[in-house]
Amino acid sequence: MSKDLFSFVGKSLERVDGAVKAEGKALYGDDISFPNMIYAAAVRNPKPRIEIRKMDDSLAKKIKGYFGIVSFKDIKGKNSWPLVMNDYPFLPEKEAKFYGETLALVLAENQRTAKKAAACVRLDYKELPFIDDPLKALEKKSLKIYGKDNIISSFKIIKGDADKAFKDCDVVIEKEFRTNYQVHAYLETQTATAVPEPDGSITVYSSTQCPFYVLDAVAAACGLPNNKVKVIQTVTGGGFGGKEDVPALVAAHAAICALKFNRPVRLAYDRKEDFMSMSKRHPSWARVKYGADKNGKIKACKVKYVLDGGAYATLSPIVLWRGTVHAAGPYKIENVFIETYAAATNKVPCGAYRGFGQPQICFAQESLIDDLAEKLGIDPIDLRLKNMIQSGDKTATGQKIDESCGLKELTEIVRKKSRWDKSEVKINGDKRRALGFSCAYYGVGLGAKGRYLDRAGAFVNIYRDGSVQVNVGNTEMGQGALTVLSQIAAETLNAPMKNIKLAEVDTSKVPDSGPTVASRTTLMSGNAIIEACLPLRENIFSAAAELLKAGKNKITAYGGFFYFGKKKISFEEAVKECWSKRLKMSEQGWYAAPNTTFDINNGQGNAYVIYSYSADIADVEVDIKTGEKTVHKIYAAYDVGRIINPKLAHAQAHGGILQGMGWAIMENLIVKDGIMKNPNFTDYVLPISTDAPQYDISFSEKLYKHGPYKAKGMGEVPLIGVAAAVRNAVKRACGVSLTYCPMISEKTLKTINDKK
Amino acid sequence: MSKDLFSFVGKSLERVDGAVKAEGKALYGDDISFPNMIYAAAVRNPKPRIEIRKMDDSLAKKIKGYFGIVSFKDIKGKNSWPLVMNDYPFLPEKEAKFYGETLALVLAENQRTAKKAAACVRLDYKELPFIDDPLKALEKKSLKIYGKDNIISSFKIIKGDADKAFKDCDVVIEKEFRTNYQVHAYLETQTATAVPEPDGSITVYSSTQCPFYVLDAVAAACGLPNNKVKVIQTVTGGGFGGKEDVPALVAAHAAICALKFNRPVRLAYDRKEDFMSMSKRHPSWARVKYGADKNGKIKACKVKYVLDGGAYATLSPIVLWRGTVHAAGPYKIENVFIETYAAATNKVPCGAYRGFGQPQICFAQESLIDDLAEKLGIDPIDLRLKNMIQSGDKTATGQKIDESCGLKELTEIVRKKSRWDKSEVKINGDKRRALGFSCAYYGVGLGAKGRYLDRAGAFVNIYRDGSVQVNVGNTEMGQGALTVLSQIAAETLNAPMKNIKLAEVDTSKVPDSGPTVASRTTLMSGNAIIEACLPLRENIFSAAAELLKAGKNKITAYGGFFYFGKKKISFEEAVKECWSKRLKMSEQGWYAAPNTTFDINNGQGNAYVIYSYSADIADVEVDIKTGEKTVHKIYAAYDVGRIINPKLAHAQAHGGILQGMGWAIMENLIVKDGIMKNPNFTDYVLPISTDAPQYDISFSEKLYKHGPYKAKGMGEVPLIGVAAAVRNAVKRACGVSLTYCPMISEKTLKTINDKK
Repeated sequence: MSKDLFSFVGKSLERVDGAVKAEGKALYGDDISFPNMIYAAAVRNPKPRIEIRKMDDSLAKKIKGYFGIVSFKDIKGKNSWPLVMNDYPFLPEKEAKFYGETLALVLAENQRTAKKAAACVRLDYKELPFIDDPLKALEKKSLKIYGKDNIISSFKIIKGDADKAFKDCDVVIEKEFRTNYQVHAYLETQTATAVPEPDGSITVYSSTQCPFYVLDAVAAACGLPNNKVKVIQTVTGGGFGGKEDVPALVAAHAAICALKFNRPVRLAYDRKEDFMSMSKRHPSWARVKYGADKNGKIKACKVKYVLDGGAYATLSPIVLWRGTVHAAGPYKIENVFIETYAAATNKVPCGAYRGFGQPQICFAQESLIDDLAEKLGIDPIDLRLKNMIQSGDKTATGQKIDESCGLKELTEIVRKKSRWDKSEVKINGDKRRALGFSCAYYGVGLGAKGRYLDRAGAFVNIYRDGSVQVNVGNTEMGQGALTVLSQIAAETLNAPMKNIKLAEVDTSKVPDSGPTVASRTTLMSGNAIIEACLPLRENIFSAAAELLKAGKNKITAYGGFFYFGKKKISFEEAVKECWSKRLKMSEQGWYAAPNTTFDINNGQGNAYVIYSYSADIADVEVDIKTGEKTVHKIYAAYDVGRIINPKLAHAQAHGGILQGMGWAIMENLIVKDGIMKNPNFTDYVLPISTDAPQYDISFSEKLYKHGPYKAKGMGEVPLIGVAAAVRNAVKRACGVSLTYCPMISEKTLKTINDKK
Repeated sequence: MSKDLFSFVGKSLERVDGAVKAEGKALYGDDISFPNMIYAAAVRNPKPRIEIRKMDDSLAKKIKGYFGIVSFKDIKGKNSWPLVMNDYPFLPEKEAKFYGETLALVLAENQRTAKKAAACVRLDYKELPFIDDPLKALEKKSLKIYGKDNIISSFKIIKGDADKAFKDCDVVIEKEFRTNYQVHAYLETQTATAVPEPDGSITVYSSTQCPFYVLDAVAAACGLPNNKVKVIQTVTGGGFGGKEDVPALVAAHAAICALKFNRPVRLAYDRKEDFMSMSKRHPSWARVKYGADKNGKIKACKVKYVLDGGAYATLSPIVLWRGTVHAAGPYKIENVFIETYAAATNKVPCGAYRGFGQPQICFAQESLIDDLAEKLGIDPIDLRLKNMIQSGDKTATGQKIDESCGLKELTEIVRKKSRWDKSEVKINGDKRRALGFSCAYYGVGLGAKGRYLDRAGAFVNIYRDGSVQVNVGNTEMGQGALTVLSQIAAETLNAPMKNIKLAEVDTSKVPDSGPTVASRTTLMSGNAIIEACLPLRENIFSAAAELLKAGKNKITAYGGFFYFGKKKISFEEAVKECWSKRLKMSEQGWYAAPNTTFDINNGQGNAYVIYSYSADIADVEVDIKTGEKTVHKIYAAYDVGRIINPKLAHAQAHGGILQGMGWAIMENLIVKDGIMKNPNFTDYVLPISTDAPQYDISFSEKLYKHGPYKAKGMGEVPLIGVAAAVRNAVKRACGVSLTYCPMISEKTLKTINDKK
């Protein structure tokens, strides 16, 4: 293979799943059905915290088409969802801990009847005192709702001596920041269908990012060995982290019902219950402190970071850990002290959301860096350039960055493109318009905290006609994985792109490949595909050479053909020759990421195998009479290693930026006294297409030697720095240092007015 | 692994699919269903040969629930079933060539309506002259219905100079033999369901032995690449060869309909149409000649063997080839001349039936050997022992048998067990009772003629909890493959048997593994499983040794546990350790059989990689007043290499013997002037449980070095020699040399009376 000349990698090929989705043919979770299928609906906790006394479905029994109720007593396995801390029961036994928690399920012949029956179940309960504020939860004298201290998880990073270093700094700055929830707002709500099989197995169709988490949960709930659970990912209408953990719970509920009634069971959430019960981006509180010398050399950083975990741990420990690792920002700082907490509250458990604990702390520290620059009288980009990580530098966890680090270049790209150096505040009546900068780094994959899961498999099967089937364990959820991975398979085999068929995940075809999160799919599944393809490639290239009567090293391969002199044969001909020789044409590939390290005592170690980077400049206009903001443009530059498909990379960037912007200035979930007040898209305002800024996207491809075609990971990077860039533009435009997300108009106006 | 101590291999473990079948839970082809499924029914040719002029469904259109008709015009791919000769159109265009041939399909909302609609289609046709006798078909001046000579296929074996050798013989004997059809009489008729998928793919659920043949046919008929066709074998209610080729046609018909109407389509045959249109054991005619010196040394053999192929080639060339290779019997004979023909007739195409062209010619030559023994005045077993193949001898194709040949031992076993040497004709009124012997050899697998297909894949996936999924490309059809292959997997991995899940075939999980025929499943899929397991075993054993703190060669493994001194750990613990080290726990295995050879000009070569052997003694009573026969007992001994599961091996023996006995004396399909007269189980008489003889089964395990745990193949061997043993017992009992199968009472009585 010529390293400089790819047939498919690096090309903006059309999405392989584009037509089937655009034509409305794709079957999402709620589009599939099975003979004799019945429908489940959840009976939900109406209060933040209750003692469950009795559930009575006698009224429901009078409804035609009602089948019955399912409670924790019907769980054949263990009533404990296996997920990090295993503290979440599939169905609560005595106590329910958050508003919207599923208490029981009712079954009926159709969805409408099931919903009606669920509403008829009479609940006898006692309200219990609750906690809804994570900072209060951490107070020593607080009510204890989780363990002995309400702490779900906690980490520390200790490098050098921050407190001592601050004393030697010329400038020290410290501020508190808060961010609110963010709802994933995927188009398709949580949906699962469980089908009991004749041999006692169960097949689950799930709208999910993480089919193997679904498998684990269903096996546990049903008391079945793993080989008796098959999870098939239905075409998934959006994930963003929201289809990471919750689908496993939804699927387990459907499976428990299916086993009890021995019929296929559909459980699909409506939008309200999806809001109420599914995971969200954690609300956060952070106090950040930076100290520098007068030249702008940052000497110390101290962070206290608290996440509102909600009632059960779910993914909070891992989300918190990622936030912890990245909390000091992408800077070389000798003295770092970071302490972080995920606190329990009687609210919906928070979980994964694109960025996974990083955007909140990035917002805080990148805002504070700008404020530090102001205090030092240094241009905020210049300040960062003095301190930012470059090849050879060490991160806050002491990890030496020794390859593929484009952060400086990215910064220079957006600085130049935005004409930052010549930019000034534009005044137009009540409007003030300016640029704001932020930058970020992102540890690709699961890192030290999830290293046991950082492996992936792939199955590549080449049929006799040269068509190819590829299966992986990581999912397509709209991000383009099927296309990018198809390109990797086509490139490695030198197969025509149209010959590759890559479909949604079936857990019975590939080994546990970990979750589809942490921007790890291209890297992990891509490498697994290459591993599977290499021996096949060897056979095919040998056969091609033989057919061309040439030495194997003398032939060239491009675009599905093999060449020697003027002779040419097709991939299909080479495959046919392999089959006629009865050579092996199917392989299971396997890729395990290099080892990572993390010392739990001081937070030092090589936390991730590799990092991606971003630099953002936001061009924002603020109406100082209303507080309203218009994000005119985002200049963004990314180093995510090799770009496998530029068009899809741009699409990832656009989506990430818009989602980051929504979180920064618009999306505002209100939970008061533990009750969610706006669980719908009328009252929870999302950015729509007319809100979208102009995008100016650049890439600097710093190649990663262990990446598939030297790619790193792209999915989350575009979101992380957006809020801080917007905030820093607002600061520059009208001189206020906002310390909260979302920066909604009313609140911004108040800050502006308070400052006057 | 200790070679002398197996945990699972060689044990009579229960069938893994026993409970689900016994409890009625297994889902056969007609038990599954899909939303919006519609039903197809065939419009069939009412005559042996017609010119199709017009098909008019205007009457059918008046039926409520009628959807429409599908003809050859609806075929999106090529109207040619890809199977050996590719001469069979999926649906005929101008000419239909046998009674019962599918001319078109009609679709309706349920099966009853579909059948009714099919009966309403008005057919405008012209009857054409036809041929129904294969010997007439071969006459030079005959009507030509197939090619230029009505010969579908023809082979020759020429070794030495038979004609010359006969001149030097002291005794020469020559006779003609005829055998009739045999109907597979599986419990489940031909059934397929085709489901169109959103991306234009198609999934086919098929009751089949050969899912990859189904894949080939459906892909061809639909004009789809192979990776867009998925074939899932439904639990299959019997095969015996009858689910080898025909399911591909049935599935292709369902798929053509499904694509036209874009709905799932079920096509299930009723018993009559199954009789009419599915493949059968070929009727045969053979003239066999043996010459020997006075001491009984057989010097020469000459055979002319003709099979009635029916209207299309289907598998006749391969069936004929197997018959050709084995036609001289399991004897070392220096001079052999064999010529064989598959002749076309206007009757249902014949195909595979347990034994695959061997039982017919075995009946002829093993009968004639007995007649030769009589002529020589030598005990028929003694005559055979003088001539039979032993290690170091060469077959008729010149193949040197250099390992695993137990024929002599088998012969001695049944001779001893039946007290042959002391046996005599027992007379009881009109009844005459005696023993008859036959022996046979059987080339395991596809041999030289099918060598490109003689490879198989397996997928082994070990889950984190130590449960194991195994997928293969060969099928369970009742014979016990799932159990035997599970034993092989469990043994190789040292996994508990209960941990293994092996299910029906899904062609998207394993590469094309060839057909499930020719007694090749244990050998091919077994070896593929071992190939897949070996690297996994390596990891597991290493992990076990490490956990036991022992050298890898110091531990012992048995029954799902690993031992070192007094310490013991389980398979599951070792697997868990592998997963925590992120070792690869899934593999695709691949096994290609050693090469075989066959010179088409003289029929010399190593036709098969290895042979299994059988010796049968039938204890038969004949009523000389009625011709009625009672088979009291069959003494049978087999060398099929290692017996993986003795209980299942016995079951295979019982089934094969009873099927052989049915063919020998009862089953009599009548086709007159090209029309089938008794296509039902009332008029086509099968042996039932009360007809079953006593079985006395022995094994001599001559190990085969390339076999999985040194097994060969078992499926067909028990049937092959039964008819000749029965015939030879009848001869001994009442002195008549029958030359036909079935030896029904009326005909036998006539032969007895003719002789008087």
